Amino acid sequence: MDIESIREGKLGSTPAYTGPLHSDPFLASAFAHEGVHSNREVSAWLEVRQAANHFRVTKKPLEELRGWRIDPESGNIVHQSGRFFSIEGISIRTNFGRTESWMQPIIVQRDIGILGFLTQRIQGVLHFLVQAKMEPGNVNILQLSPTVQATPSNYTRVHGGGSTPYLEYFLEPGAALVHVDQLQSEQGSRFLRKRNRNMIVEIPAHEPVPQHPDFCWLTLGQLFQLLRVDNLVNMDSRTVLSAVRFGEGMRPEVIGAGESSNSFADEVLLSLLAPDHRAQHHFDYLLSFLTRLKAKYLLNVEVVPLNCVRDWRLENGVVRHVSGRFFSVIGVGVEAGSREVRQWDQPLIESAKGGIIMFVCQRRNGILHFLVQARVEPGNFDAIELAPTVQCTPSNYGPGAVLPPFVEYVNGECGELRYCAAQSEEGGRFYHDCNTYQIVEADETADFKLPENYIWMSLQQIKNFIRFNNMFNIEARGLLSCISVTLP
Amino acid sequence: MDIESIREGKLGSTPAYTGPLHSDPFLASAFAHEGVHSNREVSAWLEVRQAANHFRVTKKPLEELRGWRIDPESGNIVHQSGRFFSIEGISIRTNFGRTESWMQPIIVQRDIGILGFLTQRIQGVLHFLVQAKMEPGNVNILQLSPTVQATPSNYTRVHGGGSTPYLEYFLEPGAALVHVDQLQSEQGSRFLRKRNRNMIVEIPAHEPVPQHPDFCWLTLGQLFQLLRVDNLVNMDSRTVLSAVRFGEGMRPEVIGAGESSNSFADEVLLSLLAPDHRAQHHFDYLLSFLTRLKAKYLLNVEVVPLNCVRDWRLENGVVRHVSGRFFSVIGVGVEAGSREVRQWDQPLIESAKGGIIMFVCQRRNGILHFLVQARVEPGNFDAIELAPTVQCTPSNYGPGAVLPPFVEYVNGECGELRYCAAQSEEGGRFYHDCNTYQIVEADETADFKLPENYIWMSLQQIKNFIRFNNMFNIEARGLLSCISVTLP
Repeated sequence: MDIESIREGKLGSTPAYTGPLHSDPFLASAFAHEGVHSNREVSAWLEVRQAANHFRVTKKPLEELRGWRIDPESGNIVHQSGRFFSIEGISIRTNFGRTESWMQPIIVQRDIGILGFLTQRIQGVLHFLVQAKMEPGNVNILQLSPTVQATPSNYTRVHGGGSTPYLEYFLEPGAALVHVDQLQSEQGSRFLRKRNRNMIVEIPAHEPVPQHPDFCWLTLGQLFQLLRVDNLVNMDSRTVLSAVRFGEGMRPEVIGAGESSNSFADEVLLSLLAPDHRAQHHFDYLLSFLTRLKAKYLLNVEVVPLNCVRDWRLENGVVRHVSGRFFSVIGVGVEAGSREVRQWDQPLIESAKGGIIMFVCQRRNGILHFLVQARVEPGNFDAIELAPTVQCTPSNYGPGAVLPPFVEYVNGECGELRYCAAQSEEGGRFYHDCNTYQIVEADETADFKLPENYIWMSLQQIKNFIRFNNMFNIEARGLLSCISVTLP
Repeated sequence: MDIESIREGKLGSTPAYTGPLHSDPFLASAFAHEGVHSNREVSAWLEVRQAANHFRVTKKPLEELRGWRIDPESGNIVHQSGRFFSIEGISIRTNFGRTESWMQPIIVQRDIGILGFLTQRIQGVLHFLVQAKMEPGNVNILQLSPTVQATPSNYTRVHGGGSTPYLEYFLEPGAALVHVDQLQSEQGSRFLRKRNRNMIVEIPAHEPVPQHPDFCWLTLGQLFQLLRVDNLVNMDSRTVLSAVRFGEGMRPEVIGAGESSNSFADEVLLSLLAPDHRAQHHFDYLLSFLTRLKAKYLLNVEVVPLNCVRDWRLENGVVRHVSGRFFSVIGVGVEAGSREVRQWDQPLIESAKGGIIMFVCQRRNGILHFLVQARVEPGNFDAIELAPTVQCTPSNYGPGAVLPPFVEYVNGECGELRYCAAQSEEGGRFYHDCNTYQIVEADETADFKLPENYIWMSLQQIKNFIRFNNMFNIEARGLLSCISVTLP
């Protein structure tokens, strides 16, 4: 699907829902397929922002990045202020997976940033303030970010740029209601134990909020539609949206959904509302699954100088693996019209293309369950995080190598393809990094043989894990945020 | 209270409860003040075990410990096998509290051990299999431990000792029901990121379990009585018991408890069952409290050689602080009759005496709330864990120093003393380490001014945090386990 569909208003036809679910502000917002701005207006706004903002990104050698230097001793790529982030090396040993030890470059960023949506009830419906934000690594330059997406290095103005709009609502919520405030991880294969505060803050309905041309109020129903458009809702928006809990404490009877639910959205809603005892495994069993694997699998990560990282080389201004696979560290120069600083250089990670991020789900005991993978990644804060059923980039596997389990479900070759879109990883760190995000529903009769690190969970159980930090990885969270409770 | 009261049967008089709460096996077990073994029999069994088991502990210089060596380069105290644990040094920097940087010795133990209770329904009531276990550091030699208390170094028999009874139920639960399986922290001021698996496993009622003279089946009601005896239920038992969740999903109406509950046990039960919206803060607000502090407070810990630790010295066979305060690392020689190995030496930590571990609680909105402290300790896995209202050793404060907030509640000098006992820290690592454990209920009219790192939580909220690892510290968990849902 592309943004044309939104302009054409193809998705905004369902009338706003006013049933008993309406008592939950997030569900009510999800059922609002249009908001104070119609989908046509949103589409027009996006076009205007795209035209209004000048942005040019050019690749340049790492050695020539203004404001950055390659430390002569370690080879690490660091900002001259010592802030922002750096590219360093790590040496990994683990008994998980087929590779027992390797070295790789990694992004080190100690700052805990804020990814926050400001929300407010407008005409009784909760709206989210999204930002049309340009990032150098975005394949299409402009994507929709949370209201605030900033690290202390940004908002304490290390780079001497402008202030971050709306930041004060997150630093000092005051009378605002904090719905979500969690520390959540980012890519464990690219960042060393990086975490951000994922926040959703609701300001009182009567409180005036300053307008800004780069910002727009959208309902969750509108966001779910935009999440079907390729590369539009950015990674930071997706991770925050994954923390939304729907219909907490509601009984599944209220939706009239049961064994006979007939749309995928009904199944999703039922899986969100189903009490623990209707799921295949009790939540304590899921905790035990995770504990057992954390006790079994070791992860030893040592930070090493970038120039000591075996099999990786800085050549022609780029750090890359000798095989050409995995990822490279490249440099870019940026000219911008709408950012705090109008011109800057920075390193970005350019990953191998063709990544697949997919959940297989299946109705089990009448409830939709998702097949979750426990996975060791080198940058994980606590060795293991829960991941999508499939998270891989096939081109990174050598010729003849066996691909990970359940790849046969990709593209719905078995089962029904319930969701498919290209989604981008964070354009502030990743260069043109788009992955295929899919949800595939397996037939109820399909039989699964699970490796020891895979397990079925209901959506309510998944949401219960997400509430606590470092449980679900960002790939899983980013995909879960795409699952609409209302769209077919 | 001492063990005489148990022998006299003073506590076992309440008849077993058979009301609607009985549908929860943990509540039903808590209401069973006697089990298959009467309290008299339990007391007699303890006396017999004490007499049957020969155990002698003698202090000896660290340099003379058989099987251990002081590494000539680092000064670290290590086992010759490289297993078990070691005493190393750490250098700490933090912006939490008054001391910005210091160095100290710390116990390093990478193994994840198992602390597990085997349970079984006997005559319909869930019983816990406790072990009368001798540990060299126990002030009274014998205490009640979980069924299994073992690290991989023990049960893979690095020391060449006997096998660990009942271990197989935890490593391969098979048909058993896993009620609890969590990774939980130990003392963050003494251990570097140490965690154990806390487990409660229920084996089917019909399955025969081998008998062993050092083991005895007790109800939770009996354990709550024994938790009122000084230094009897050991630290490892307490941490596992703190994970028990009572009356999950039950509505508070079933206990007939409400605004008019008239015993402390009723208040406790109501606080365990009360839905989130009846608590002072929504659970999301509590998560936000923790997230905000984790983003604000930094903890930087670097492992250093023990002989580089400033202000600490190895003198006369003991590692101690130049001021004589805090703690020392001492050596002991052990002769035992009931342990896997009959004779061994090991280092132990001897802490300053007079520690206080206390929760202040108060009825707020008609629900009992506990005043919880967020606290940075150097060995914490994630910088901050939630701790009791007061956790301090006054003798560690220099003359004229200001003691931490709320110490005025100690001994119930304000408010009602609801629980008071001396409890021991783990006798396998700590030498004669007893602290005063207290619960004090403040008057409903008492007004509290809270520092930014203190917050009120209901017991249900606390239990919800404990379910996830590294949220509540072991001091808090050990004290929470002492709060009976049935005893006055």
